[in-house]
Order: sequence, then structure tokens, then C-alpha cells
Amino acid sequence: MNTRLEHDLLGDLAVPEDAWYGIQTQRALDNFAITGVPISHFPDFVRALAMVKKAAALANRDLGVLAPHKAQAIVEACDDIVAGQLHDQFVVDLIQGGAGTSTNMNANEVIANLALTKLGYGLGAYQHLHPNDDVNRSQSTNDAYPTAVCLAVQFAATPLERAIIRLKERLEAKGREFTDVVKMGRTQLQDAVPMTLGQEFEAFAVNLGEDIDRLHEASLLLCEVNLGGTAIGTGINTPPRYQSLAVSYLAEISGKPLVSASNLVEASSDMGAFVLFSGILKRFAVKLGKMCNDLRLLSSGPRTGLGEIMLPARQPGSSIMPGKVNPVIPEAVNQTAYQVIASDLAVTMAAEAGQLQLNAMEPLIVYNLLNSMKMLESACTMLDERCIKDIRANVEQCARHLDNSIGIITALVPRIGYANATRIASQALNSGATVRELVLAEALLQPEELDRLLSPRSMLAPVGESV
Amino acid sequence: MNTRLEHDLLGDLAVPEDAWYGIQTQRALDNFAITGVPISHFPDFVRALAMVKKAAALANRDLGVLAPHKAQAIVEACDDIVAGQLHDQFVVDLIQGGAGTSTNMNANEVIANLALTKLGYGLGAYQHLHPNDDVNRSQSTNDAYPTAVCLAVQFAATPLERAIIRLKERLEAKGREFTDVVKMGRTQLQDAVPMTLGQEFEAFAVNLGEDIDRLHEASLLLCEVNLGGTAIGTGINTPPRYQSLAVSYLAEISGKPLVSASNLVEASSDMGAFVLFSGILKRFAVKLGKMCNDLRLLSSGPRTGLGEIMLPARQPGSSIMPGKVNPVIPEAVNQTAYQVIASDLAVTMAAEAGQLQLNAMEPLIVYNLLNSMKMLESACTMLDERCIKDIRANVEQCARHLDNSIGIITALVPRIGYANATRIASQALNSGATVRELVLAEALLQPEELDRLLSPRSMLAPVGESV
Amino acid sequence: MNTRLEHDLLGDLAVPEDAWYGIQTQRALDNFAITGVPISHFPDFVRALAMVKKAAALANRDLGVLAPHKAQAIVEACDDIVAGQLHDQFVVDLIQGGAGTSTNMNANEVIANLALTKLGYGLGAYQHLHPNDDVNRSQSTNDAYPTAVCLAVQFAATPLERAIIRLKERLEAKGREFTDVVKMGRTQLQDAVPMTLGQEFEAFAVNLGEDIDRLHEASLLLCEVNLGGTAIGTGINTPPRYQSLAVSYLAEISGKPLVSASNLVEASSDMGAFVLFSGILKRFAVKLGKMCNDLRLLSSGPRTGLGEIMLPARQPGSSIMPGKVNPVIPEAVNQTAYQVIASDLAVTMAAEAGQLQLNAMEPLIVYNLLNSMKMLESACTMLDERCIKDIRANVEQCARHLDNSIGIITALVPRIGYANATRIASQALNSGATVRELVLAEALLQPEELDRLLSPRSMLAPVGESV
Amino acid sequence: MNTRLEHDLLGDLAVPEDAWYGIQTQRALDNFAITGVPISHFPDFVRALAMVKKAAALANRDLGVLAPHKAQAIVEACDDIVAGQLHDQFVVDLIQGGAGTSTNMNANEVIANLALTKLGYGLGAYQHLHPNDDVNRSQSTNDAYPTAVCLAVQFAATPLERAIIRLKERLEAKGREFTDVVKMGRTQLQDAVPMTLGQEFEAFAVNLGEDIDRLHEASLLLCEVNLGGTAIGTGINTPPRYQSLAVSYLAEISGKPLVSASNLVEASSDMGAFVLFSGILKRFAVKLGKMCNDLRLLSSGPRTGLGEIMLPARQPGSSIMPGKVNPVIPEAVNQTAYQVIASDLAVTMAAEAGQLQLNAMEPLIVYNLLNSMKMLESACTMLDERCIKDIRANVEQCARHLDNSIGIITALVPRIGYANATRIASQALNSGATVRELVLAEALLQPEELDRLLSPRSMLAPVGESV
Repeated sequence: MNTRLEHDLLGDLAVPEDAWYGIQTQRALDNFAITGVPISHFPDFVRALAMVKKAAALANRDLGVLAPHKAQAIVEACDDIVAGQLHDQFVVDLIQGGAGTSTNMNANEVIANLALTKLGYGLGAYQHLHPNDDVNRSQSTNDAYPTAVCLAVQFAATPLERAIIRLKERLEAKGREFTDVVKMGRTQLQDAVPMTLGQEFEAFAVNLGEDIDRLHEASLLLCEVNLGGTAIGTGINTPPRYQSLAVSYLAEISGKPLVSASNLVEASSDMGAFVLFSGILKRFAVKLGKMCNDLRLLSSGPRTGLGEIMLPARQPGSSIMPGKVNPVIPEAVNQTAYQVIASDLAVTMAAEAGQLQLNAMEPLIVYNLLNSMKMLESACTMLDERCIKDIRANVEQCARHLDNSIGIITALVPRIGYANATRIASQALNSGATVRELVLAEALLQPEELDRLLSPRSMLAPVGESV
Repeated sequence: MNTRLEHDLLGDLAVPEDAWYGIQTQRALDNFAITGVPISHFPDFVRALAMVKKAAALANRDLGVLAPHKAQAIVEACDDIVAGQLHDQFVVDLIQGGAGTSTNMNANEVIANLALTKLGYGLGAYQHLHPNDDVNRSQSTNDAYPTAVCLAVQFAATPLERAIIRLKERLEAKGREFTDVVKMGRTQLQDAVPMTLGQEFEAFAVNLGEDIDRLHEASLLLCEVNLGGTAIGTGINTPPRYQSLAVSYLAEISGKPLVSASNLVEASSDMGAFVLFSGILKRFAVKLGKMCNDLRLLSSGPRTGLGEIMLPARQPGSSIMPGKVNPVIPEAVNQTAYQVIASDLAVTMAAEAGQLQLNAMEPLIVYNLLNSMKMLESACTMLDERCIKDIRANVEQCARHLDNSIGIITALVPRIGYANATRIASQALNSGATVRELVLAEALLQPEELDRLLSPRSMLAPVGESV
Repeated sequence: MNTRLEHDLLGDLAVPEDAWYGIQTQRALDNFAITGVPISHFPDFVRALAMVKKAAALANRDLGVLAPHKAQAIVEACDDIVAGQLHDQFVVDLIQGGAGTSTNMNANEVIANLALTKLGYGLGAYQHLHPNDDVNRSQSTNDAYPTAVCLAVQFAATPLERAIIRLKERLEAKGREFTDVVKMGRTQLQDAVPMTLGQEFEAFAVNLGEDIDRLHEASLLLCEVNLGGTAIGTGINTPPRYQSLAVSYLAEISGKPLVSASNLVEASSDMGAFVLFSGILKRFAVKLGKMCNDLRLLSSGPRTGLGEIMLPARQPGSSIMPGKVNPVIPEAVNQTAYQVIASDLAVTMAAEAGQLQLNAMEPLIVYNLLNSMKMLESACTMLDERCIKDIRANVEQCARHLDNSIGIITALVPRIGYANATRIASQALNSGATVRELVLAEALLQPEELDRLLSPRSMLAPVGESV
Repeated sequence: MNTRLEHDLLGDLAVPEDAWYGIQTQRALDNFAITGVPISHFPDFVRALAMVKKAAALANRDLGVLAPHKAQAIVEACDDIVAGQLHDQFVVDLIQGGAGTSTNMNANEVIANLALTKLGYGLGAYQHLHPNDDVNRSQSTNDAYPTAVCLAVQFAATPLERAIIRLKERLEAKGREFTDVVKMGRTQLQDAVPMTLGQEFEAFAVNLGEDIDRLHEASLLLCEVNLGGTAIGTGINTPPRYQSLAVSYLAEISGKPLVSASNLVEASSDMGAFVLFSGILKRFAVKLGKMCNDLRLLSSGPRTGLGEIMLPARQPGSSIMPGKVNPVIPEAVNQTAYQVIASDLAVTMAAEAGQLQLNAMEPLIVYNLLNSMKMLESACTMLDERCIKDIRANVEQCARHLDNSIGIITALVPRIGYANATRIASQALNSGATVRELVLAEALLQPEELDRLLSPRSMLAPVGESV
């Protein structure tokens, strides 16, 4: 492999001749090989880094600390990267030491080299435009990196929110489709009182839908950025007015309502907004998991389970048992949910481990947040399109359950009393007879009234409204 | 022990003659002995239960399904309990099966017996006023219990918020006290650039202060209650208008802006608001822990550590090492933080384990939420009064660190350039000389300018503002 | 309250006149009020502390650094405490700063005062026998406390192991009881192939039984103690031969095969054995939880669930639904399991937080380990006596499931081929007919052979053995 | 893209013409896209799958249920895959529904097609050799998959163990290198008593070394496999003697001492061995993390921290602060440790979620176990070669700390008494004087004795041995 030689504080090092990154990225490649997942795995993050660099360049230019031709070249380079170019040059492993320095330098180096070619120079001709002195001017990893993370998470939130919305709307549609399917509700896995299958799916929709708002609220906390704080939030080595100008440019470029954090020293080390965001992802994972648990329960069978719904078959279920079809889609979602819950723990521990003026573990937080969002988005789409869309109700089974159920006796309590009801319930359980049979046998109610009280219309409305 | 005999679905059972609770509470006592922590450990929860029962009684009375004299007796009984009476009769272990049935019945039974005595009857004379038929009328555990939990958590949030506010104000005061103590900031435990000790404490204050708002927002989600949904949210066996009336009474009684959940079927099984609330507690624990880690680092020494602050001595540190004093208060807070983080995991798993129309694991969620809030409140108060209040700055050590530091060279970069600065930094590191000495030796700057650039006033402001 | 004045490094402080503890315990009471759970909550821990102190006293006496009459008084005091006396004087909150110093001093002070009364002196007359100079001689919290913890955990493991053994034996008995109940096995909640209910319970027994060995192995790691290492494992201020002598005395007193850790510096800060032990408890909790999930599934119904077993009714299940009985005992066990899993996280984080020569978070580890063991022991006993013991099989339901099942077709594959079997399975699913009916209708097999192949004896044995 | 058409239970589907996998793998590709990490990411797993298939083929051949020429072709195909061929055809995402069915079928299909080409047939000519009927004969996913996992984890354990051994040996070498560097030990971040830097590194070595044994023990539990149990452990559709024969072949092929699990029904759903193994990985991560925390503390500075060791510079530390070098390698290890701890939670939750006769979440367990092992191996190697190897002691700083420390007074207690020592310690703290100066000023000891008592030789040995 042909190489070119670059130089930094630690000395010389060869980088591949045609690499758009430089020596510090090379060192990071040599140092870190933990996950095998490079920055480029998350295009939102690459775009966010380029936007931060562009905003800084514009602010530096305006304030006279960066020559206009350099600023122009940097801006064009950033625009290219935002548009999707050179993402494969963002090669550093996401788990890295240095609180993001390697990621920041990877961005600085790629942008510098791309800007250099725009100015007619070759790769590595940093005397004309330097990754640190020019691209990183008025910045530190400690403000540029977290600011980019805030943006990247917001960017990634959009497709996730859309996936949740689609899933919610599908569940609502199923709720409408199943609006007339009356069935037994269950509490603690024991037969309770009647409801409709439509209500069950509508409840899923409402439940997941709430998290769209929560995600949005949590995103807003990420609009407070520490750009301009540099090393520890005191803004050392930034020109006057740089901070407000850079943030304002970044808001414009990103289309996000960014503001400066009110206390930059605090903001430099605080991971609170990420912990909260991760907590929301975890909450959504918990809800998704609960729903998939229910889907698997309700579709259990086909003969020896609840069998009230039928999931679409997506693959043969067994190499040994003919005809077996398994709930593979919800199972995959359940596993995704556990992984996201576990990721929240990684975020939590990393946040707690911050020391003094910086959190050196932020790269782990970034890795887990972006990974969780990507997995949840895939899981929602998979669940929507490959499962929920084609769920069918087993109307006969739902009706059979309702008819056989003892729980429907609850609806008779206001008429026959709790004591009679308890006695009938007990007889039904022991004899195998139905509630209907026993009530008629004892002539506790006339057939017409019994029919009326046990009609879905009656049982699904509060007792007073049925009379 | 003298006993009286009571009866339920399962048959007869003796309860202590003078117990205000009844047979179902007795069964729960016999069944559950896991934590040893009874409901009464959390008075806010007992009060909340009584408020729910009072609201239900008033609504039932208004709607004509509960005789006025019974309603009156129940209301008076509830008022007494809210005022602090008979809390010791709330005896069931907080970890219990049954989704809170035992807690709900403990409340129903104590209230029934107290109401009976007000009506002139003896304990257990349920033919005159019944725990189920009267106190629990129009309710199910599945709506009464979660509603009480929502209230209890809100009640418990108030003293916690107050403790956080006091802690925040103390940190702000310390921030002002230390406003002139210039010191080195550190990133990744390596010397970075100057700041003041005041900024460090102010950042702690800002950091913790944010969570007061987050707690408040999360509390608002708990204002959506499912009272009136009864068994599974369909409102079976409630009279018309009961739901809105009961919630409106409860809002008035509790002083909280309660509203009915928009979808009661969803609300019956949803633990999302608790998961979110627990996530906020976890976030606060993470922040508290990070701050205490910092306090222990900054006070490390007295001779071989950072030694920039001195924590007050609260107890002798060692039986073997004379004069040793340890940071025992922050250490206890760190442990509390870990416990709260762990509790969040219990809440998460319990929430995920809900099945179909109810979450049978809700008692575990309640236990962990209330426990975490109580522990955090104690920890904040302890930290405030027994540690932060009496922290002193080691001004000499801070100044010594600043003078010896190489990191101050960052402030010279705009004047002597990054290359010179790097060379001087390297010489300083290898020789043990100070930056000041080396810069003067090389005559890179005049003493006056050097003094000016390295003055706190200059180093703590953005570079542009210093000129 | 009458008080006496005591003195330590920080000055004077009043302690209750009749308290057997002294000034440092009093300071700890004033400092720490996080959990409300005092040392005395775990008698095994109190006993272990007294044993360590006794061993140290004997070793000190033998080596001539403690006067024989003092040693004798200390030994007698320790014996009294081991026998159960004065446990209520171990009052410090289990979550405490100081790496256990307060617990160690609580023990030193109670023992000193008890020894003083044996020598005819009053409480607090430490000039005659001193908590530090005499009771704590040749010790540091940093070796005495972890050594006592190692013992306490081993002590607490015994009743836990016994409870697991009883539970396992009960499950085995149920396995034998249900040996002839043939039923459908399920994978992924879908009907799979036949098995017996006896096999299902036997598998539970085997599954839990394995953890008895794992617990025992993990206990053995706790036999390596660091007694004699004092402050940081270098054994400073101990007389020659003290370490081996003290450990050997302690082994004799405790009846446990204790040995000195091979590297005392390492042992002073290492929490590895506790992390492993906690991991075993977590594993057991996972298994218990999985089994209880299964019990709740298998007993779901009574009419609209699996309904293959019936759990004993332990309390009325609902105030609103007559006759409802819930699986409250397994539900409580599930919650216990979640709490234990969460506690393992607290242990993990506390272990990771150790710094340099000591782990200051050890009290949190102790609290969680002892608490988890106590909860698991209660849960096992509750589950055994209040649930498993009285589980009954629903033989008819098991048989009905088997007859209706499509999964039994797996047993015909070797005779009719996978293709035919798949086709029949599909027809059965769509038509509602049974496999038996369809196979006969197509005359794929003679009735006799079909009966033989579908007999339990045949289906439960490997295919080759059935011919 | 050219395709070929394949057929299964659900109908026809096109697969790429040159794909070695088949229709069920294609369905899985369409269904699952959660992590983006395919089976081939873990070559140990691919090899293990091929070994299982080879063992089954040999057993089937011996028992006459698989034609010799088919068996031979399958065996050769498996050998090729074990040797590294076609790994890129193992394409299914590791997080998948179906309890591993897709992974098992991916293996069955690739092996079938490779075997077909060996027999002279084209891809997809399954009428001559079938993925299910031949490659999967006498197996179910439910025994073949977990058995392969047991092997894969054992395979992956070997390089991890080697990496730990190398790291341990390096730490031992450093321990010897630093054997004469006397320094202050610290407990609770406060100055304690003297030790050597060599002891500190030796303790690290001992601490990590213990986990080699623990890993090995946990590996042994994975030698119990459920091969032959098929669908639910009853061994349905296996020929007599198949189970023992297959396991014995697999032991021979894999070189691992495999045995049949004693209860195959239990073994089919039990994840206990994986939970335990994951717990050991977590424990090791905790220890690694603690050590890296210490390395970062000890190297803090260079001027305002502890500064007792110097880590090698691996990359420039800051774009804004000249000369700053950060502890990037330990930081990356800390993050890895958090990720592994979080993965253990995913494993735990997945294990608890198993239902009845199978654990559908096993793929998540596999993913996390293999991922954690790979990350830990990388982290150990990185830490060894890029950090520990080149750590240097700051001998002067260590000596300075020792001389200035107050903690050395502990060594004088046996001669001047605790009371004097406490007084001197307090004076030293307040005045800034050294212990040596104050003791001489008060003439409490003669200079010679003082020198002797404070000599390293004396302070590092138990007091009795120094006289």
C-alpha cells in the first residue's frame, strides 16, 4: 500500500496515500478496534459533524480569524459531506478513548483534505489549510463533539418517530377492524370481564403513541448545545461573539432550534439530556416488548393456547414439526427491546463515570443511543409491515371464550347480588357448566333479561348506561 | 391472642380481636413476607389510598348507590387516616402478588372498621358497612390502586423537590463563596485550562437544578388517572357519570390537577408514566453520584491527592491510621445513587412483565419508586447539611496547582503560536520547570504581557475579550 | 433522655446513658439515615462480626499484645453476641460511608462495653478496655469488615440452600405425582410435541437444583479472607504470626474452612467473590422467575387460558369479579426475582467503583447480598408451601389439548412422510378437524397403527424405541 | 440479479442464483434486519454449527437413517466450512425470531448445497440431498442450535483466556519492575499507609488472573449439551442410540469433553449456563474497569494530579491544549467494560423471558455473549500492548508523596502511642510540616530510630517483623 507521511505531536506516521483522513485518524485506527462499528455506520452523525464544522468556519470567517478562501473551501467540503460524500472516510471505531477526540479529528482531517483539493492542493498539504488550526478553529473536541451528537440524535429521531407513527396508525386501523370482535379480557392471566379485540389494539396504539410526544420533548433538551465553550466551558481561545454566532449559524444550517446552554461549564460535562433521551427509548422498548408479549400470548396455539388472533406466517417454524408456524417477528422485537434496555444501562453507567470538567465516556453514550434508535426504527417497521398488518382475528375462538367464561357473571352482580354470583361462579368452575345454563336452571333471571345483560352491548358499557 | 372470626370467598379465618384490618389483610400477612416493609412505611401512600376511598364514597353517594350515612362514616374514616390515624394498621408487605389487591383490601377493611365504629358498631360487623360492597363500591383494585399510587408518588415528590432545591441553593452559595478561587480545570483527569472553584460549584447547582423541572414534568403525567375504569378499563359495574365525578372529587381532595386518562383500557395496564418517573429519579441519581465522585476527587489527600477542597470531618476515619478523615457523606450518597439506579431496573423489568389487561407487578414498581424517593430525599439533605455546607477551599493548593500547571500555556497560544506552545509544554513536562520560567527564558513574551495573559481575569474570559 | 459523654478524634458527643454502643456509633447514627435498615436486620452479620473480634482477641492474647484478662472479657462478650444477645445495639444503617468503619466501630464499641461490664466497670470506661486499642487491636475496618461479610454471606447461604432443597424436593414429588399426565409441550407458545406434566415439573426441579451446587461453589470463594492485612493488605501494625493465627482461630470459631487470601493487597480491594456470588443469586432469581412465569401460564384460565394446572387459592382475587382467584404467590416470587436481579446491578456498580487500595462502596454490596438472600429464602419457602405443594393437574384439559393438537402429527412423520404430514396439518388447522380424523379419512394409516403411534408410550419415547 | 426459485411450507421464493444458502435463509434476510451483524461476524459460531451437523450426519449414517454417500458429502461440506470456507454465506442477522431456526436453516442450506456440488448436482437440487430431511436429520433447531452455541462460546473463550493471560503476565512483569518504588497507599482516596508500586501492579495481576480459572470453570458447564433432545427434549423422531452417538462424535470432532445433559427436557429451555458465563464476563469487565479507573487516577496530572505513573502517549490529547496527552487506552477499556456489563443485562432478561419448553430469546443471548467476548479480548490486547507495556513510574513523585505524607505516622503508633500520633498528625495537617519534622521537634524519637521506623523496609513489613 502506498502511503504518505504525516506529522503530529507524537511524531511521524504513514497514512494510506489516498486516504482523505490523516495522521490522528490513523492513530485512532491503530488504537481502537473494539466494536468494529465505524462512525460511518451512522450517517446522521457524519452529517452532524460536518454541519458543526461549517457553522464554526462561517463564524470564524465573520469574526476575521479564518481567511475567507479557507472558510469557503471548508464550507464546500462540509456541504459535500452533508450531501453524502466521503462518509466511508469516517473510519474510527465508535468506542474510543479521548472523549471523542478521534472522531472530531477524523472530521477535521477529512474536511481539511477535501477543502485542500477544492483549493487545488494535494492530500496532506496542511500548510495551506490545517485540520486543527483552520477546521477546528475556535473549537475543542469538548464542545464540537457533544454539539454534533445533539444534532445526530435529533436527526435519527425523525425516522424513528415516523416509524412509530406508522406503527401506531396500523394499530389504530386494526382497532377499527376488530371493533366488533367481543372477547374476554384477562387480568393476571385469569379470565376477567368482556371487552373487544378492537379495544385491545386501540390500547396498543394509544400506549405507543404517547412516546412520540415524549421523544419530541426529550429532543428539545438536545437543542441546548455547548458550542463555543471549547475545552471546559470557559470559552478559552474563542474570539468575542464567536459562541452566539456559531450557534446561530448551526441552527440555520441544521434547521433545528438550537440555543446556547445557559451554563457552558455545566454543559461541558453534563450527560443529563442523553440519559433522559435514553430513558425515553428504554420506556418505548418496554412498551413495545409488552405488546409483543401480548401478541405472542393472544396468538398462542393454534389448538392448545389462547388462539384469539392469528399472526401471519413469515417462515416455516420448525424443521421437525410439520406445519408449525412461530411468532418470529414479535420474538425479534422482544429481543430488540431487551437490547435497548441494556443499552440504557451502558448509557447510565457511562454518564455516572464522568469526572470533573468532562465526560470521557461520551463515545459509549453516542454508540448506544444511535444504535438503539436504529434498532428500534427497524423493529417498528418490521413489526408493522411483517406482522401487525396481516393479523387476523379468530372470531369463533373469541366468541367461544366469551360464552364459556365464568367472568361474564360480573355483569349479573347488580341484578343477582355478589353472593349468588359467587356461588354460581363456583358451581360453574366445578361442574364445567356455563354461567348461562346455571342461572337459567336456578331461574334467577328470565331468559330475555339474561340475554340482554350478557349481550356485548350491555357488558361493554358501564352498568348504569345499559338500563 | 384473642381473635375474631371473619369470612370470605375462601372460608373463615381468625384475625386479632383488636385489628382494624380484616380477613383479606390477614391472608395477605400469611402469604407475603418478602421485604418486611409494610405499606405504612410510606405514609404518603396510606394517605393517598384514603383519599381515593373518600372520593369514591362521595361519588357513590351523589349517584345514589351508597347510603348517605354510610358515605358519611366512610368519609370521616378516610379523613382520620389522611390526618395520620391508624397508619400502623396498613400492614401488608409492599411486595405482594395480586396486583395490589391486598393493599386495596387492607385499605377497604381498615376504613370499613373505622367507619363502623363511627356508626356505633363493633369491628367486623360488616353487615352494616362492608369493605367490598360499600368502601370499594364502583371500584376495582385495578383502578383504585394505580390511582392511589399516582397520588402517592406526587405527594412524595414534594419533599424530594424541596430537598433538591435546598441542595441546589447551597451549591449556588458555595459557588459565590468560591468565586475568586482560581484553579486548574481538568478533562480526562489531565490538567486542562483554568477556571474558578466557584464555577465548579455553580455548575453542580445548575446540573442538579435542572432535575427539579424534570421531576415536575414527570409528575404531571401522573395526573392522568384510571379511576372509574374498574377491572380492565371498560368501567363495568360503575353507575353512569361515576368516573368523572369520582375523579373530580379526588382532584379536589388531593389538591392535584387530576384528569381521567383518555383511554381507560390502555391506562389500566400502562406503566409508562412510572417508568418515565423512575427514569428521572435515575437521572438525578446519576448526577448526584457524579458530583459526589468529584467531591471525593477534589478533596483527595490531604497530602498525596488533589486536595483543592476540604470536606468537614464527620467521624474518625480509621481505627488504625491516626488523624485520617474520610469522605463518608459523599460515599453514602454514591451508594444511594447506585441503589436508585438498580431500582430503576426493577421498575423497568416489572413494567415489561405486564400481561394483557393489567400489570400484576405494579406493587414492585410502587415499592421501588417510593423507596428511591425516600432515599434520595435523605441523601440530599444529608449531603447538604453534613457536607456541602461546611466545605472549605484550599486556596493555596488551588493557586499552587495553577502556577505549576502546564495547561495555562493554552492561554498563550494566540500570542506565541501552537508550535512554540507545544515545544514549551514538552520542555516543562520533562524538566519540571514552569511555563512562566521557560517563556521568560526564551524571551517569547515580555514579563508584563506574560503576567497579563496568565492573570485569572484574562484566562477565564474568551481570548478576544481579554484584549 | 439521659446521656453519657464520650470522646474521639473529633471531640465530645453525648450517647444515651444506657447504650451499649459508643460515640462513633452515635456519629454514624447522626450521619446516616438512608435505608432505615440497621445491621441487626441481619443477625448472621452481627454474629460474624463478633466471631471476627473473638478470633482477633485470641490471636492478640497468644502473641502477647492483649492482656489475658482483657482477651477473656472480649471473648465472653463475643460469645454472648454470637448467642444472640445485644443484637439490637447494632444500630447503624447498612448504607453508610466509610467502607464499613461505622459497622466495625459499632461492633468494637458494643463488645468493649459488654466486656467492661464483665470486668466490673461501667459503660464507657474505655480506659480499662478500649474499643480501638483492645477490641480492634491488630485490625483495621479494611480487613475485619470484609472478613465478617465473607462469613455472614456463608451463614446466610445455609438457610437459603435449605429452602432451595425443599423447593426442589417438592417439585420432584410433583413430578412423580404427575408422571402419567400426558400433555402437549409448547415451544415459542406454539403447540409442539407431547410430553408429561411430570416431566415439566421434574425439569423445574433439575433446573433449580443445579443452583445449590453453584451457590456452594461460590461460597467456597468466600473462604479466602483478608484478616491480618489491616489497612491496605500490607499488614501494618500487626505482630508477627498474627495473620495466620487469627485466621486459624476464626476458622475454628466459625466452623468454616477459612484460609488467608494469597495476596492481601489484592484481597483488600477485590470485590470479585461478591460479584460472583451475586451473579449466582441473580441466576437463581432468573430461574425462579422463569418457572413462576410458566406456572402462571399453565394455570391461566380457568376457561380462556391454558388451564392445565390449578394453583391453590390463597386469597380472593377480586373485589369486583366474583369467584376470581389469582396466582398471587408466583406473582410475588416474580417480583422478588426482579428485585434480586436489580440488586445484582447495585452490587456490580459498587464493585466497579472501588478505587485504589479499597472499595468504599462495600456496605452497599453487603446490604444487597444479604437482602437478596433473605428475600430469596422467603420466596422459596412461600412458593413451596403456599403454592407448589397444592398444585393439582387438570387431567381432562391436558388430554383434551393432546387430542385436539396438530403437533402430534410429528409422531407420524417417520411413517407418512414430511410432505403428507404438512398437508394434513394444514387441513386440520383450516378445517378444525383432528389429525386422527383426517389421517383415517385418507386411510394413510390403519386405525390400530395410528392408535399405537399416537399413544403416549410411543410419542414420549424416541421413535426408534417405539418399534 | 439472477435468481433461482425455491419452495417451502409457505410457498415459492426467489433466491440469488449463486447463493449457497436457500429459501429459508432468504426469508430470514427479508424478515430480520435489526443489528446488521450476520452470523459470519463470529467464525467460531459458524465452525461450531458445521461441527454439529457433521456429528449428526455421522451418527445418522451409523444408525442407518442417512445414506452413506449423503453422509460423506455432508461431512466433507462441514469440514470445508470448519476450515473457513463459505463463511460469507452465513448471512442471517444475529437478532432473529424463531429461537435460532433461521441460523440452523442457514447452516442446513449452505451445507446441503455444498454437499450437492460435491455429489455433482447444482445448487438447490434438494431432491438429491435435502437441508431438512438429510442435513437436519434427527435434529431440531432446539437441540442443534444450543449445542452449537455451547461450542462457539467455548471456542471464543480460548483467545479471550489467552489475552487475559498475556495481560496478567505483563502486569506481573510491571510488578517486578516497580518492586522498589515505595509510595503511599490510599483508601477512600485519602492517604493511608505505604506500599510499593510493585505491589499495586502485582495486585492487578492477581485480581485479573483469578478470572482465568472462573472462565474455565464456567466453560465446563457448557460441555453439557442437549443434542439428541430434538424439539423439547423428549428426543422425538430420533433413532435409538442417536443421542449418545451424536454427542460422542461431536466431542471427538470439537476436541471438547462434551456430555449429554442429564435431563434433556430441562436442558432444552435452560439458559442457566449462559447466564453464569455472562456473569463471569461481567465480573471480569468490572475488574478491568476498576483497574483502568486506577490507572487513570494514578496517571492523573501531569502537574495537578496524583502523577505517580506515566502512561505512554498514544495520540495527541487535544486540538486546543498543546502538549496534552490523555489516557485514551484505559478510557476505551472502561467503555468496553460498561458495554459488557450492559450485555449481561440483556442476557439476563432474555433468559428470564423463556417460556415453557424453550427459550425463544436465545439468539439475543448468543449475540451478547459472543460480542462481549470479542470486545473483551480486543480490550485486553489493546490495554496490554498499547498501555501497560510502556507504563513508567514517576519515582520522584512517589517518593515526594511518601515524605510529605501524614499517613506514615501509622508506623510510629506502636512506639509513640495513638494519642501522640493523632496529635502530631493534626499538627502536620494544620501547619504543613512533615511528620518527621514534628516528631524530631518534640524529641519523641531519636533520629536514628525514626529513620529506621520510616524506612520502606520497616513500613512494608508487619510491625513485629521490623524489630
